[in-house]
Amino acid sequence: MQRVSAKMDDAGYLTAIGAVVRARRLKQGLSQEALADLSGIDRSHMGRIERGERNVTFLNIVRIANALDCRPSHLLRLAGA
Amino acid sequence: MQRVSAKMDDAGYLTAIGAVVRARRLKQGLSQEALADLSGIDRSHMGRIERGERNVTFLNIVRIANALDCRPSHLLRLAGA
Repeated sequence: MQRVSAKMDDAGYLTAIGAVVRARRLKQGLSQEALADLSGIDRSHMGRIERGERNVTFLNIVRIANALDCRPSHLLRLAGA
Repeated sequence: MQRVSAKMDDAGYLTAIGAVVRARRLKQGLSQEALADLSGIDRSHMGRIERGERNVTFLNIVRIANALDCRPSHLLRLAGA
């Protein structure tokens, strides 16, 4: 069942999804605080998600994607997942 | 920033991703225990994820997708996310 291709490790995935969220937020001219408020996520937790320091949950991915006006699956695809 | 279209609620998203995982697991002829072991996830936790009783994390979505030989973003898309 193991794939041969190289895979990102855990830290790589968390860093990648955080960077995708940050890039899309900036593209939409939102501050981190504004995105946190729109998503209903604690501001300090949002900072940790963007820095890849937290294992973001599915429902928070959904909330962030809604606030960024895109599909959750799209955020994951952009993050290489 | 609010979309007009109907959105699933939290329980709907968790139920949907759990159903997608279960369907794909069965298609591959895997028991829930086998998928849990392949994913490195506790067996009882895997049962709760499949039943939509837990807010599955990004890294567990990655692990499950790897075990099911598909992309994490694909699982989310199948779940309507």
